[in-house]
Amino acid sequence: MNMLVDGEWTTDAYEATNDDGEFDRQETSFRDRIEDDEDATFPVEAGRYHLYICRACPWAHRAAMTRSLLGLEHAISLSLTEPVRIDDGWEFSERLPDPLYDEPYLRDIYVRAADDYTGRVTVPVLWDKKKETIVNNESEEIMRMLDTEFGRLAEHDVDLYPKGYQDDVDRLIDDIYEPINNGVYRAGFADTQAAYDEAVGELFDALDHYENVLGDQRYLAGDVLTEADLAMFATLVRFDHVYHTHFKCNRRAIHEYPNLWNYTKELYQLPGIADTVNLEHISEHYYRSHGDVNPKRLVPTGPDIDFSESHDRERLGGGPPKALFE
Amino acid sequence: MNMLVDGEWTTDAYEATNDDGEFDRQETSFRDRIEDDEDATFPVEAGRYHLYICRACPWAHRAAMTRSLLGLEHAISLSLTEPVRIDDGWEFSERLPDPLYDEPYLRDIYVRAADDYTGRVTVPVLWDKKKETIVNNESEEIMRMLDTEFGRLAEHDVDLYPKGYQDDVDRLIDDIYEPINNGVYRAGFADTQAAYDEAVGELFDALDHYENVLGDQRYLAGDVLTEADLAMFATLVRFDHVYHTHFKCNRRAIHEYPNLWNYTKELYQLPGIADTVNLEHISEHYYRSHGDVNPKRLVPTGPDIDFSESHDRERLGGGPPKALFE
Repeated sequence: MNMLVDGEWTTDAYEATNDDGEFDRQETSFRDRIEDDEDATFPVEAGRYHLYICRACPWAHRAAMTRSLLGLEHAISLSLTEPVRIDDGWEFSERLPDPLYDEPYLRDIYVRAADDYTGRVTVPVLWDKKKETIVNNESEEIMRMLDTEFGRLAEHDVDLYPKGYQDDVDRLIDDIYEPINNGVYRAGFADTQAAYDEAVGELFDALDHYENVLGDQRYLAGDVLTEADLAMFATLVRFDHVYHTHFKCNRRAIHEYPNLWNYTKELYQLPGIADTVNLEHISEHYYRSHGDVNPKRLVPTGPDIDFSESHDRERLGGGPPKALFE
Repeated sequence: MNMLVDGEWTTDAYEATNDDGEFDRQETSFRDRIEDDEDATFPVEAGRYHLYICRACPWAHRAAMTRSLLGLEHAISLSLTEPVRIDDGWEFSERLPDPLYDEPYLRDIYVRAADDYTGRVTVPVLWDKKKETIVNNESEEIMRMLDTEFGRLAEHDVDLYPKGYQDDVDRLIDDIYEPINNGVYRAGFADTQAAYDEAVGELFDALDHYENVLGDQRYLAGDVLTEADLAMFATLVRFDHVYHTHFKCNRRAIHEYPNLWNYTKELYQLPGIADTVNLEHISEHYYRSHGDVNPKRLVPTGPDIDFSESHDRERLGGGPPKALFE
């Protein structure tokens, strides 16, 4: 991610901390909605929208998993940026080109959407090929739109925001955000020991809590898989490779929590999910992009763990959407 | 550790890498011997010698453990430097003063021994209070001297270099040095991915090998505890807290190797050993001293592991020196 500061595109500004050495994530800027209504500004339409993501990014991952679980690959095209993000932010390359405009950098896509754009250049980007603009770049809103508006085009009858669970899903997504999803960044980007200690304390308190929750129920909201699980999984699947070592969240690895680890393996093994996980891109991104955390930019091969090992989640009630196995 | 380069004491020079980005450890410089012979230049004598160490340093740890297992505390005095070593190298402080000369830095002790000294300032330092000079600053030689020359003064009838095992002990100390004891440094201080990958590969190949060896025998040389075990333990006890995360040796933690972990716990629990381990000094030293590896100098609390948990080593033949339990 980078942003224009004093006429220069910069990445550092993004990772800046406040006066207490705490990492403050800045807000995203395109917040329009696709609706299943032909009169809407951005109506649901097969082939009209494109997702720009990076396989490394946990926020973009939510959108990619939703697209995959609903079976929207034919309806919404998707392309990847390079995983390493240094001075020029997210970039395209010969092996991973911009399929729409052949631009070199993702920031060029932002400038196409708003020629005076100077804010953060982040993934995911949900792009409208017809209007040639960004509909939305807020990962939770994109996940929700795909989930609730694209049902008509979905190949799988999967609902990740089911009636009767919606308040819980909203609450859970909110509850895990600060201590877990953003907590690993607050630990890793902290500039003071106090800010780091606080972030790590909250992170592991929350992981301990959900370890208990997942001892008694299959998914975060109960018996059914929801958006909250995708939000959780995006952090858990990256944890042992990058957050544990690179962001120094090393009190315990996810593969040392029996319930969180089995839960992570179950989600990884759902049809379509493993293809959205690229551990090489994940490791390359974190270890090589943050020179202020890892100045030598060495990339460890990571722990010897196997997400495709058997899991024990069948012991609990409920299960994944049947449509995924039809 | 620091050294005098172009008239300036410097720490960076110590961590420099060669043209291939590989860390080259430099040799120590005082290599005299204490002998159990009253006509020797440095004869064995109760109260005459002093050990300067830092609790963080794995090399110094070998000497401290030997002193403790043999029961030489009354015969050889010992003092600690501060764990964090930045611009001025190892330093003394109000809470950890130099008990002999009240010098501010360990380099001042080196200059007392040789007023033209410009080399590396390392721990351990074995100091002769009578001649006011350094006898030796090479950890393996100090360990061996305490072990083989000080028997007459030792309170415990412990021999860590027993007849019939000496060739094996020498070979083992040599075999584990490059891949394990120094291997973690070669990984952490590597400047290129190739140098790092090679070091980490050799390190885990060696750990896997000794995991197998220790499945069938109690100690590295067989049934009896030897100097080779102290050399191994000094690395293993630091591994999960610092080498795993700080030096990115994260393929596997020691507490995930059943035999290495039980072996580490047994050694930790031997009388006198736990007092030589200061995990706070260890973490403070590594995370805060190496700005080129951890520029924010944040110190993780480390993994939630307990060296005093029960171990299973009694299942194997042999055991620790009986004199430790008398």
